[in-house]
Amino acid sequence: MNNFQFWSPTEFVFGKDTENKAGQYVKKHGGTNVLLHYGGKSAIKSGLLDRVKASLDQAGIRYTELGGVKPNPRDTLVYEGIKLCREQKIDFILAVGGGSTIDSSKAIAMGVPYEGDFWDFYVDKAEPKAALPVGTVLTIAAAGSEGSPDSVITKEDGWLKRGAGTDLIRPRFSILNPQLTCTLPAYQTACGATDIMAHVFERYFTNTTEVEITDRLCEAVLQTMIHETPRVIADPENYDARANIMWAGMVAHNNIVGVGREQDWNSHGIEHELSALYDCAHGAGLAVIMPAWMEFVYSHDVMRFAQAAVRIWGCPMDFANPENTAREGIRRFRGFLRSIGMPLTFDELGAKTEDIPHLVKTFGIGDGRTDGFVKLSAEDITAIYNIAANPTLL
Amino acid sequence: MNNFQFWSPTEFVFGKDTENKAGQYVKKHGGTNVLLHYGGKSAIKSGLLDRVKASLDQAGIRYTELGGVKPNPRDTLVYEGIKLCREQKIDFILAVGGGSTIDSSKAIAMGVPYEGDFWDFYVDKAEPKAALPVGTVLTIAAAGSEGSPDSVITKEDGWLKRGAGTDLIRPRFSILNPQLTCTLPAYQTACGATDIMAHVFERYFTNTTEVEITDRLCEAVLQTMIHETPRVIADPENYDARANIMWAGMVAHNNIVGVGREQDWNSHGIEHELSALYDCAHGAGLAVIMPAWMEFVYSHDVMRFAQAAVRIWGCPMDFANPENTAREGIRRFRGFLRSIGMPLTFDELGAKTEDIPHLVKTFGIGDGRTDGFVKLSAEDITAIYNIAANPTLL
Repeated sequence: MNNFQFWSPTEFVFGKDTENKAGQYVKKHGGTNVLLHYGGKSAIKSGLLDRVKASLDQAGIRYTELGGVKPNPRDTLVYEGIKLCREQKIDFILAVGGGSTIDSSKAIAMGVPYEGDFWDFYVDKAEPKAALPVGTVLTIAAAGSEGSPDSVITKEDGWLKRGAGTDLIRPRFSILNPQLTCTLPAYQTACGATDIMAHVFERYFTNTTEVEITDRLCEAVLQTMIHETPRVIADPENYDARANIMWAGMVAHNNIVGVGREQDWNSHGIEHELSALYDCAHGAGLAVIMPAWMEFVYSHDVMRFAQAAVRIWGCPMDFANPENTAREGIRRFRGFLRSIGMPLTFDELGAKTEDIPHLVKTFGIGDGRTDGFVKLSAEDITAIYNIAANPTLL
Repeated sequence: MNNFQFWSPTEFVFGKDTENKAGQYVKKHGGTNVLLHYGGKSAIKSGLLDRVKASLDQAGIRYTELGGVKPNPRDTLVYEGIKLCREQKIDFILAVGGGSTIDSSKAIAMGVPYEGDFWDFYVDKAEPKAALPVGTVLTIAAAGSEGSPDSVITKEDGWLKRGAGTDLIRPRFSILNPQLTCTLPAYQTACGATDIMAHVFERYFTNTTEVEITDRLCEAVLQTMIHETPRVIADPENYDARANIMWAGMVAHNNIVGVGREQDWNSHGIEHELSALYDCAHGAGLAVIMPAWMEFVYSHDVMRFAQAAVRIWGCPMDFANPENTAREGIRRFRGFLRSIGMPLTFDELGAKTEDIPHLVKTFGIGDGRTDGFVKLSAEDITAIYNIAANPTLL
């Protein structure tokens, strides 16, 4: 196990009707003048936004609204939010929505006190030194942004999708009401589940040895997702299954299951090029890319993939040929994704093989290699996109 | 799943040589004038205390020492600590030691700003409203106090062992260096492992349904302990096994694995009477009490105990007679405890059956019943002590 530092100071408020406490928690965490940041119609139509506003009013909190966050949130709205916060002397950002809204809020939070262009943080040109405090009312179990130090933004000019991370933007509080996720359509629910599972797999496949506790915790989250996801696909209003998935989504990404070990974020990076170019759902892109990545890398550590197959998917161990078990685990993953309605191939996602050179180019690795479980060259990434176009372990 | 609130703001600094950062972290968390609280000779002899002092000196932090914390920490030293803190105008308490030292530090931290008797917090006569900040340098993986809101203190007058809990005393930072635990003798190591496992079992056996995520997380910690504990008993200097146990000990008790579900703390309560009366190690007492409690309650929910047997202990499921599986799980637990050198009976612990009426009386339930998985009467507690004297599932 490697040395590590772990800090997850977010106050989580979980359960039915908890959005009515939003005002109380903004106040507790020092907010007096809030940017209320959200996406589109569903938060308005469902009455959620009204309930949150009523809660802010009741706590005597002023607020300015900024809606319109889109999936794969854009830099253009972040610039608008930064300007608005400065004009209105905002001291707290309350995100009401899913990962896109939270990520957009985090970007604004870092941008307000920064003199330069906030995009600097997303292309490693600068490190944030301060940020406005952020709180969240979560409506989609997926990104884990409600408990994470991360934010992913898409630059419209060139459709570049990039991430930034700092403990400064870990939410001060996050309100998680599983009821709010019960109206989410099956496809988006499955996309969220896939994203949650990917957050764990990116941590699970590691070259760090002797990490039994985090291995087991990773497996716990994945087993939960395998149990609960088909239940919510079959019965979207199943509160308890929604609740288990919602908490699993936080645990998957606040890093409690990933400390002390090298991680691999290549599947996320390779997927980001797809959702940036085609504006597809991140989870759907991951369903296509992550098993393809597994196909490409599993021979690097057959026993770790066999462990995943046995412990996560319940495959019988083929002691004479562990490689068979490793491959069976990847097949089971694809079978599970198929069963919850996810695409498995470029075709099914609407991606085009002729775009692969462009995707690899915007990935931007040049002649270098990525970090991770297997360090990937541009050639390797091309190979992974090609597997995603024509997978063999189905 | 039940509604819940979860907040674990402690900054964890984990790994080799991390005690040398103590001064830096005290400073980061606002301490300028520290009470350096510790136990006995081992911290001095090992050079640990000198390293911590050097680190405080380097950070320009003043400190006053208070050693002498004993296992099952006493109220008398807490009073001494409170007086010393007031005289010296201490603004931060740094605990260097195991759960006893941390619990004593937390008691002092609550006592300093309180006008009344700190013991009020331990007998539910008052709620703490403020506390000095506490940091820790952990030397024993066991109590989980490094990440928990809990403190257990023994009142010498009458040997009453009681607990208090408030988020105010969650440590601001905890330094966890597994190397510091490598010199711990096998018996104490096993006591610590038993305590960690008990913290999880007290959460696992619940009447709350639909808690797959926390069930799985509990199982993850227990499976880790089952894998790693025999390794450190066989090879005390195994850093990686020590590291996995040390992080498991924190995860077991900061409540990330216990949120959203009713918990049962009766085994801890029933054990506390043993360690208060006989001054035995808490973990050893738990090895005697917890399986006895399981024997007494398993028929209340046979399928939950069968789940534990299958998922945690790897027992084959007896589908025709789940009760056999449930009972086999309890046998496996005792077999495991035996294998790591723990006592299993009153005799082996040095407890006396003739003391049972006294133990039940000081437990103090009167004609009432406890909370928990099964609500226990004084008669039930008597029965559990009797099973602990003469267990059948061995």
